[in-house]
Amino acid sequence: MFEQIITNVRNNVPLVHAITNYVTVNDCANIILASGGSPIMADDINEVSDITAISSALVLNMGTLNERTAISMLAAGKKANQCGLPVVFDPVGAGASSFRKKIAYQLMEEIQFSVIKGNISEIKFLAAGEGRTAGVDACEADKVTEDNLKSVADFAKEFSKRTGSVIVITGAIDVVADEQHAYAVRNGHIMMSRITGTGCMLAAVTGSLVGANPGNILKASAAAVCGMGLCGELAYRKLCELHGGTGTYRMLLIDEMSRLNEQMLEEGGKYECI
Amino acid sequence: MFEQIITNVRNNVPLVHAITNYVTVNDCANIILASGGSPIMADDINEVSDITAISSALVLNMGTLNERTAISMLAAGKKANQCGLPVVFDPVGAGASSFRKKIAYQLMEEIQFSVIKGNISEIKFLAAGEGRTAGVDACEADKVTEDNLKSVADFAKEFSKRTGSVIVITGAIDVVADEQHAYAVRNGHIMMSRITGTGCMLAAVTGSLVGANPGNILKASAAAVCGMGLCGELAYRKLCELHGGTGTYRMLLIDEMSRLNEQMLEEGGKYECI
Amino acid sequence: MFEQIITNVRNNVPLVHAITNYVTVNDCANIILASGGSPIMADDINEVSDITAISSALVLNMGTLNERTAISMLAAGKKANQCGLPVVFDPVGAGASSFRKKIAYQLMEEIQFSVIKGNISEIKFLAAGEGRTAGVDACEADKVTEDNLKSVADFAKEFSKRTGSVIVITGAIDVVADEQHAYAVRNGHIMMSRITGTGCMLAAVTGSLVGANPGNILKASAAAVCGMGLCGELAYRKLCELHGGTGTYRMLLIDEMSRLNEQMLEEGGKYECI
Repeated sequence: MFEQIITNVRNNVPLVHAITNYVTVNDCANIILASGGSPIMADDINEVSDITAISSALVLNMGTLNERTAISMLAAGKKANQCGLPVVFDPVGAGASSFRKKIAYQLMEEIQFSVIKGNISEIKFLAAGEGRTAGVDACEADKVTEDNLKSVADFAKEFSKRTGSVIVITGAIDVVADEQHAYAVRNGHIMMSRITGTGCMLAAVTGSLVGANPGNILKASAAAVCGMGLCGELAYRKLCELHGGTGTYRMLLIDEMSRLNEQMLEEGGKYECI
Repeated sequence: MFEQIITNVRNNVPLVHAITNYVTVNDCANIILASGGSPIMADDINEVSDITAISSALVLNMGTLNERTAISMLAAGKKANQCGLPVVFDPVGAGASSFRKKIAYQLMEEIQFSVIKGNISEIKFLAAGEGRTAGVDACEADKVTEDNLKSVADFAKEFSKRTGSVIVITGAIDVVADEQHAYAVRNGHIMMSRITGTGCMLAAVTGSLVGANPGNILKASAAAVCGMGLCGELAYRKLCELHGGTGTYRMLLIDEMSRLNEQMLEEGGKYECI
Repeated sequence: MFEQIITNVRNNVPLVHAITNYVTVNDCANIILASGGSPIMADDINEVSDITAISSALVLNMGTLNERTAISMLAAGKKANQCGLPVVFDPVGAGASSFRKKIAYQLMEEIQFSVIKGNISEIKFLAAGEGRTAGVDACEADKVTEDNLKSVADFAKEFSKRTGSVIVITGAIDVVADEQHAYAVRNGHIMMSRITGTGCMLAAVTGSLVGANPGNILKASAAAVCGMGLCGELAYRKLCELHGGTGTYRMLLIDEMSRLNEQMLEEGGKYECI
């Protein structure tokens, strides 16, 4: 189903402006490059509008949020909306502090996002203030399983309808939905949760893919989710050959993204309509 | 001697709040995960208290200190003290500027640390203002050797008595001490000094281990020191097989931490009471 | 031609103070260490002068510039000039926003740089305000080729005369020039453009080499350019053996720098006077 999604990235080399946390920013820049995009990180209020204006997509990631970057995110998001650029929102640890809550709600109110990506706790929190986030990982009680998959998909569709955004809920099973369609994605590997930044990297790659496919946000988002997950699987296979640990795994994940192509994605993508 | 220290981390998955420098923050997050903990980096004054309150340990690292994060460190440290959380202090380059001096002394005065970890120049500086730090590495004249080991151990015990903190002095020989006991640790490899962040990573891992073992700060700190050093040795062994350089070594170090267990630590730990 | 350039670094271990972006800062620190220097990153206005004063070189990199660090760069640069320390300027994305333009011009006006390093778009922008930078990469129309090499060299010499700085223009062919001499350097590999930070790392290594060779800025800069490029070639050779991707390549690049020596540089350096 992904047609030219990846090829468009490699041909158009979208400039992806990311305002993101300093923990995983290097991984985000490298995975944007690996996916075929070109990253630019700029977060000062004096320049974010200029930078967004020359970019193909904007990614806002709330990890290590601060007062200064919160203001820059608002300005960049508004500029992106004016320019008709896709904007990806990664509400890292949205419910972990009252500051993040406040900024997350403000961003949701003032910016029209193309894609909102988070774990189930973060997305539930955005939707209703009822998620329970302890830190940046999803709570056990909230996790997406075969049993609640259908109801999570309905929730995602409903939230997409309210927000006008494609909703990406990550977990052992990922859900990607717009108002009318929902996909369950079964790519990925548990090892991805043992390194920092796989969630941030997914948001970054999503920025790259939607930046080169602005008319096809749902499929580009689904391709990003399948693609990252598939890279996680392939990296794990290589890791076993190398007898490596989590340090090696992080490197291999970026390796795989730099090799990903249309055919691999069509053959390796495990998604279904739900 | 380390009994359940590592196992407790893997079972309890302590949330470790780190306010740390942007140079090595990704390595710190990845090694916390590798050790079995869960990292959260947050440094805005509007949220540090909220984040500390949901965490199991706090790590304060003065590398790339700035006015904004200095204030956040003070607030987070006080909150951790209120909540009874272990706090680890890494006074990176404490004597390198008058700004770091001032903040280091202020942190020492206003926060009760569970562990203070630094090289001999940094610790001497904290103790008496007489350390000579040029940059972030220990001065030659200060280094811990077989000859001065006993007197360094006595100094560490004395400083522990004054501060109520476990004192960790890193070097070719490491010293870990509370008021009554001091250990010399002979794990580690010279290669660890050829990459950035091994000191920061030790503080991060210490946060993870004391977070899961709050009733056993001395042994958890000693386990962190032995464990990091042992990982450095094992990584060097692997490096020789792979004919790699310092880039590979950094990755292998995190690999080894992700594999470390109780038995490896008991067998490979080189420590003695002094 | 590089005589003792590398050996001087390994013997003197220059302390390199870098005020740089948070995207590639870890790579910069690690490659400074790999080259034989010792990195210190500090960007708060309260301490940059103290830190510069104990350093052997200063590197100013405009990626992720903000109001706070712009002020710190000015202060550190002036201090370095007072102390007679070499200062390397990396005007990342100089023309990408009016904020960067303003700060770039201000830095050029108030600080005497020893080395100015950028891609052709960035350097043209500094020279005449006529570069066209979209993001952080050079524009197609500006690229250095065999056809325009002589005129680029003349431009670099002329700009060096005006600024008193060694000018380094990076690209498929690199140009290194002072007022009277220009070298074309043909080291490097296209793979270097597929990871983030190779430009920043070159500036960092240049800081390390000029820090240990302050009386020989032109040759130290040329050695840095040849050296980074050669490491890029050697890393690519190893990458093919390992069947790795861009993640692995980043690691191998730092590996090669940690092994680089005088003899390798003399044998592998591809430079000519133009």
